[in-house]
Amino acid sequence: MTAEEFRRHGHQLVDWLADYRKRIEELPVVSQSKPGELRAALPEQAPQTGESFEAMLADVEQLILPGLTHWQSPNFFAYFPANCSAPSVLGELLSAGLGVQGMLWATSPACTELETHVLDWMADMLGLPAFFKSSSQGGGVIQDSASSSALCAVVAARERSTDFETNRTGARSPLVAYTSTQTHSSVAKAIKIAGIGENNLRLIEVDDNFAMTPGALEAQIKDDRADGHNPFFVCATLGTTSSNAVDPIARIGEICERERLWLHIDAAMSGIATLCPEFRFLNDGIDRADSYSVNAHKWMFTNFDCNCFYVRNRKVLIDTLSVLPEYLRNQATESGAVIDYRDWHVPLGRRFRALKLWFVIRHYGVQGLQHHVRRHVELAQQFASWVREDERFELVAPATLNLVCFRHRGGDEINEVLMNRLNATGKLYLTHSKLDGCFVLRMAIGQTDTEERHVQRAWELIQQLAPSS
Amino acid sequence: MTAEEFRRHGHQLVDWLADYRKRIEELPVVSQSKPGELRAALPEQAPQTGESFEAMLADVEQLILPGLTHWQSPNFFAYFPANCSAPSVLGELLSAGLGVQGMLWATSPACTELETHVLDWMADMLGLPAFFKSSSQGGGVIQDSASSSALCAVVAARERSTDFETNRTGARSPLVAYTSTQTHSSVAKAIKIAGIGENNLRLIEVDDNFAMTPGALEAQIKDDRADGHNPFFVCATLGTTSSNAVDPIARIGEICERERLWLHIDAAMSGIATLCPEFRFLNDGIDRADSYSVNAHKWMFTNFDCNCFYVRNRKVLIDTLSVLPEYLRNQATESGAVIDYRDWHVPLGRRFRALKLWFVIRHYGVQGLQHHVRRHVELAQQFASWVREDERFELVAPATLNLVCFRHRGGDEINEVLMNRLNATGKLYLTHSKLDGCFVLRMAIGQTDTEERHVQRAWELIQQLAPSS
Repeated sequence: MTAEEFRRHGHQLVDWLADYRKRIEELPVVSQSKPGELRAALPEQAPQTGESFEAMLADVEQLILPGLTHWQSPNFFAYFPANCSAPSVLGELLSAGLGVQGMLWATSPACTELETHVLDWMADMLGLPAFFKSSSQGGGVIQDSASSSALCAVVAARERSTDFETNRTGARSPLVAYTSTQTHSSVAKAIKIAGIGENNLRLIEVDDNFAMTPGALEAQIKDDRADGHNPFFVCATLGTTSSNAVDPIARIGEICERERLWLHIDAAMSGIATLCPEFRFLNDGIDRADSYSVNAHKWMFTNFDCNCFYVRNRKVLIDTLSVLPEYLRNQATESGAVIDYRDWHVPLGRRFRALKLWFVIRHYGVQGLQHHVRRHVELAQQFASWVREDERFELVAPATLNLVCFRHRGGDEINEVLMNRLNATGKLYLTHSKLDGCFVLRMAIGQTDTEERHVQRAWELIQQLAPSS
Repeated sequence: MTAEEFRRHGHQLVDWLADYRKRIEELPVVSQSKPGELRAALPEQAPQTGESFEAMLADVEQLILPGLTHWQSPNFFAYFPANCSAPSVLGELLSAGLGVQGMLWATSPACTELETHVLDWMADMLGLPAFFKSSSQGGGVIQDSASSSALCAVVAARERSTDFETNRTGARSPLVAYTSTQTHSSVAKAIKIAGIGENNLRLIEVDDNFAMTPGALEAQIKDDRADGHNPFFVCATLGTTSSNAVDPIARIGEICERERLWLHIDAAMSGIATLCPEFRFLNDGIDRADSYSVNAHKWMFTNFDCNCFYVRNRKVLIDTLSVLPEYLRNQATESGAVIDYRDWHVPLGRRFRALKLWFVIRHYGVQGLQHHVRRHVELAQQFASWVREDERFELVAPATLNLVCFRHRGGDEINEVLMNRLNATGKLYLTHSKLDGCFVLRMAIGQTDTEERHVQRAWELIQQLAPSS
């Protein structure tokens, strides 16, 4: 494909995407596709000779589109959002078109420096402690996901606690980690991958608001020490997946400091709320954290993947993950004057992901980002007030930010049937969780183009399809 | 940014990228930027209010461009290539614009099904064993990098060998893994992350062609068993990073089968050569592999990230990595009729990366891909013949495919000075490695737009700047 053909097809595709965004609201949010349906429509073997771009785009329209659940629809209220925006899409396009690698500073200095710079911006924008900035002993890096960041936090904590002995001789000492029963599954996955063993992950009980109970954490650590175990890691969550609960970070931090445990903060979606001064209280206590993770790709209009991972002491992370073969040696690395991000995560190769974050921040400006986050929270609060007013329903957890957990008082089966009926209409999409063993509906409001009318129509539909008692 | 603004700015950016590809040859390949130079030009704080897209694009031109090393330049011969192509860039744009998540089949069925389908295509295109296809017990998945795939292979092997006991109780038994001294650093990194310990990674010696010595592997396994260790994993490389050596996979496979060790094949770049029947011999013996990894993002015109990872038995991988919290439960998963890729790697969230691979395969067709791969190999062979004819230089390793390792006979210092002088011209970029302790220049030919004239000019420049004896 020549440069001129790329220009022509690029325009075609941009036009298709612009039109997609204009009609997305009319498409059924959840794909109605059956297992195997797309595969049955595709040729069994790869084509021997080239096909036209027009043929490919036609297949996108006819075959791919019906198989999509439209995450960018304003009627998407499921899971946590993965909201993206036009400037972010353009940043991703630029990154792909440049096609540079950022594994070393030397392999494209701008790729590393823009990332460091924009993550320093983010630290200030979110009111994070100064020790997470590159001007200190710490620093930030873009990873693909909170799962990968959690793994890096666990492994760095493991090495710090064993004086890097595990990296050398393998896991031996009975290391023990702590989270709450509500923590995201990625922490359990990381604990397994890192060779700690799931049996050594303690799930600390939560209070009525589904937040970790510091007293229970303290007691468990004491028991474990008495049993000869070696506590090393705590993950506290700022906005759990099921109910958006916020663990009491300040008290957990005190315990971690006293017990010398690595404190990781998983602020996956809700950390973005701290863009707004009125939600900055969520950060209380993170001055004791060793690492912190927040997803710009959830609630900050930056398309996946863009997890921002910060460490208090970058040397520990780098010493944990660094392997420097001859073919990567270079003068800049040896000068010690640069950051080489290859040592900050599992992969070696890396895309120029800072571009999209830079574009998003510059396009919206801090005030623009605050405006949209506030609007989502307002809409969620409005939705919660409607739930409160309908006696068939109840709120199941505090709706502090943009997630409302609610249920029909009629019991689990009614709620599950209601959810399936709602999603089958194609007019909205919401998902469930279980809290206190009960089936709960989750209304997560965070899509870029969601407005009051979408939330209102969703509530009307819920009211309409819900049984009267 | 409205849909119409996106349309306009999208066209602007596509035009900028088309022009970039047209002028890339004239830009200095290696960035001349100094540490801190870009950061000094950026505002210290994020902007409070939004800026125009034109301002951002102007900064890309003036600030970012000088900080890039142009990986897509036809004069880029460093490391291994990370070649991309116009259809791939358009696939990435489409993926970003759709913004769907593929963690579960249910979260966008097309995202999962296209990936499975295209990876089955790839298995056939590369002549891989049928057990790697989804119609068998195995299957393929797109990961970000060979490093992440290696980690998954190590962890799955660890669990298979300990009957999933490590996942439950943590690493205890003295597990031992094997690679050659030439294996990519990602394996050592994976061994550390997985809690095996680097001391338990045996680096098996290589022969004169830098390929693993099966006899030495066998002897080491025997010694380890005698010492009470528990051998569990071997990584064989199809095309090492330093010299493109190919380990004797058939003989290593026999040993692995007899000793019941997991055999992982790292075919990072060179596996792509097996698109061509005449290079299919490289696959000899992989019918004994448990896992296989190849990077479409290195030599198959698909921009990073697009690592294709195959396992012989998907159940082992899934059982190793699966964690199913309530909020991810859904009818399709519970029916057992679908693949949920979240269980196949570290991250949970995932982009629709199959689109770009699908676009690339359809745009080029299998014959088109073969044509370009053959052309790169021919150019490398031509370059090698020129080196042979100049008595100042010598070839240091067999140039089987598209990498030529050579050096000036004048010793390490002369070669290092020569490399730095060459790269400082801005007219080409090549990097080094060490083989048998000697500094070696690597000429890797695999950029999408590299033609004979670029290779010829590179050789002329090398001849010109090389000392006469």
